[in-house]
Amino acid sequence: MGAGLRPTREGDITFAKDEPFQLEAGAALQPVSIRYAIYGELNAHPENTILVCHALSGSARAADWWPEMFGAVFDLSRDCVICTNMLGSCYGSTGPTSINPATGRPYGPNFPLVSVGDVVRTQARVLDELGVKRLRTAIGASIGGMQALQWAVDYPDRVGHCIAIGAAPLSAMGLALNHLQRKAILLDPKYQGGRYPDEKQPAEGLGLARAIAMCSYKSAELFGERYARKPNRNGEDPLQSLHARFDVAGYLDYQGEKFVQRFDANSYLVISKLMDTFDLSRGYASEQEALQRITAHVSLIGISSDWLFPPEDVRELAERIDAAGASCDYTEFDSAHGHDGFLAEVDAIAAVVNGRFDARRLAGGKKSSRAIVCS
Amino acid sequence: MGAGLRPTREGDITFAKDEPFQLEAGAALQPVSIRYAIYGELNAHPENTILVCHALSGSARAADWWPEMFGAVFDLSRDCVICTNMLGSCYGSTGPTSINPATGRPYGPNFPLVSVGDVVRTQARVLDELGVKRLRTAIGASIGGMQALQWAVDYPDRVGHCIAIGAAPLSAMGLALNHLQRKAILLDPKYQGGRYPDEKQPAEGLGLARAIAMCSYKSAELFGERYARKPNRNGEDPLQSLHARFDVAGYLDYQGEKFVQRFDANSYLVISKLMDTFDLSRGYASEQEALQRITAHVSLIGISSDWLFPPEDVRELAERIDAAGASCDYTEFDSAHGHDGFLAEVDAIAAVVNGRFDARRLAGGKKSSRAIVCS
Repeated sequence: MGAGLRPTREGDITFAKDEPFQLEAGAALQPVSIRYAIYGELNAHPENTILVCHALSGSARAADWWPEMFGAVFDLSRDCVICTNMLGSCYGSTGPTSINPATGRPYGPNFPLVSVGDVVRTQARVLDELGVKRLRTAIGASIGGMQALQWAVDYPDRVGHCIAIGAAPLSAMGLALNHLQRKAILLDPKYQGGRYPDEKQPAEGLGLARAIAMCSYKSAELFGERYARKPNRNGEDPLQSLHARFDVAGYLDYQGEKFVQRFDANSYLVISKLMDTFDLSRGYASEQEALQRITAHVSLIGISSDWLFPPEDVRELAERIDAAGASCDYTEFDSAHGHDGFLAEVDAIAAVVNGRFDARRLAGGKKSSRAIVCS
Repeated sequence: MGAGLRPTREGDITFAKDEPFQLEAGAALQPVSIRYAIYGELNAHPENTILVCHALSGSARAADWWPEMFGAVFDLSRDCVICTNMLGSCYGSTGPTSINPATGRPYGPNFPLVSVGDVVRTQARVLDELGVKRLRTAIGASIGGMQALQWAVDYPDRVGHCIAIGAAPLSAMGLALNHLQRKAILLDPKYQGGRYPDEKQPAEGLGLARAIAMCSYKSAELFGERYARKPNRNGEDPLQSLHARFDVAGYLDYQGEKFVQRFDANSYLVISKLMDTFDLSRGYASEQEALQRITAHVSLIGISSDWLFPPEDVRELAERIDAAGASCDYTEFDSAHGHDGFLAEVDAIAAVVNGRFDARRLAGGKKSSRAIVCS
């Protein structure tokens, strides 16, 4: 287990000092600094380098947010695990809290729109600097899975295996929920057009955004098991007053309060929108043309109770990858943990990664494609 | 069809003038005025009186919000349809926008917590005044279905058939979504502790609450069919700026803006909490004891894509009613319309109400109970 595991090495790599880093939506950043963390020995076994891509609120320290993967999936006597903090985030890489050299103050609400493609290009720059030519595996869940897929499309020569869990182009319902989260932040009077002081975040709005997101990260089944219709554990009686809460409401408020302590509202806006805009056809004539570039084997994993990225959407993406001629398997976990199943179901992920399931290449077409359900 | 159909008679009935109307949560109201609408001839065929109970944002004018039911289900040459506006609402009955006689100004945020049981008692008072002793049918969907069920429990001698669509005690996920909607209203600086002027509603907060609710009223499938990943129809390009929207976001914003024109934020808070607190065991020793009181035949209808009241929850309630010894059938519609299917699938409702499906009494126990799936 990786809980408490510290990186073998971590630091920042800065580039685009002399000429701007052009972003897909048109703007540019100069310079760009990316925080990275390395677990295991870099380039000791270059054939065993793994890039871990984090989800919305993660950091470069993969062992902090995905500890169970170390041991179950990553073997640091053999593997070198690299993780970078996402462009736009608030965990060390260039983002809204960084100083804009053009103004001398934080980018704040003026931080430009960044895409999954942009993030992957920053990762490629980091790997160049680290002397990593090729990845055995690019792996991630949610936005991290989007990055792994983008790697397989944009750098077909540099990745052998792409593993994406609970990731696909976001559906209309997902777009809806992200939009409403951003509106919650903007509604908070403390947002102040994005120019809030560091110590005065729009805590209510960001907390509400996080709470809405939590509903889509978990599942109705899990909430039912854990909270049912119980009154809040602090003793409030929801039958007696408008503002007294049920237990699930107390849980969501708490999640919101915790999140505000560790995440920046402007970063949240940028990365939430980045999730919306993920579309492998960007920069190519079509999604099919993009998928035809893939030479990696692609393993897609859907989670049965995932409401944000329904397993059908992940499976359909697997079928499109297969139809484009790439090697692809799709596995579905039967889990009540919802989208967050990627954090809770590491044993099942390990089974897929280590090939213990009969995860065969999709044979093409809906009927003959294989869905492997693990429980 | 009932579109444009005007009530045969409508008006207000006021009671509790001399002594207060005691509410289940402890407070009292004095007086209480309830707006009602009657379609067809009152007491011409007393055996054919139907009470229609509205959902969160409905009014006494049932033909305005459920027009297709008139003709498909209600035959005004035979039936008399009565509908009352819910206590706490803003469509004519006593609610937060009413003047509190004790202060001479609107109740506003001081309007007390009301329950489904309270609403049903106001309806019984209205029926008393109208000389209606017994209902052939009490019918409703969502909170309206809760009222129909409460009728069957609280007034077993007065109702012959209870029809509840998409209604059950709210699950933890439903409680969560309602809580977050209320927080959105409170977050709006224009809420001002509930003392906003009539013409200055907390429009952003109430609109956001409505938009969150719309996600739970519709389904991911419907959103996918209608909006997919299309850019907003006004020409915004969501790939180019943080605040440019996808089509589904434009739709939700529009729904929010429309809603604010027609609904009061304090009423929304009160009725949303009323939905949370629905629990047939209230006032009885247990839910089972409550259900054992039922003498009406109960028809419960679940909608396959309903996320707010999942069909499993409705079905489980049907099984508990059956286990308590009451006569109950359960029907499930296969519909992509989500919770709002009660508005969209009137033909299927008509088929159940008119007995065209083989809706038999549940035989008890999970295995032998009947689920009739209509498509």
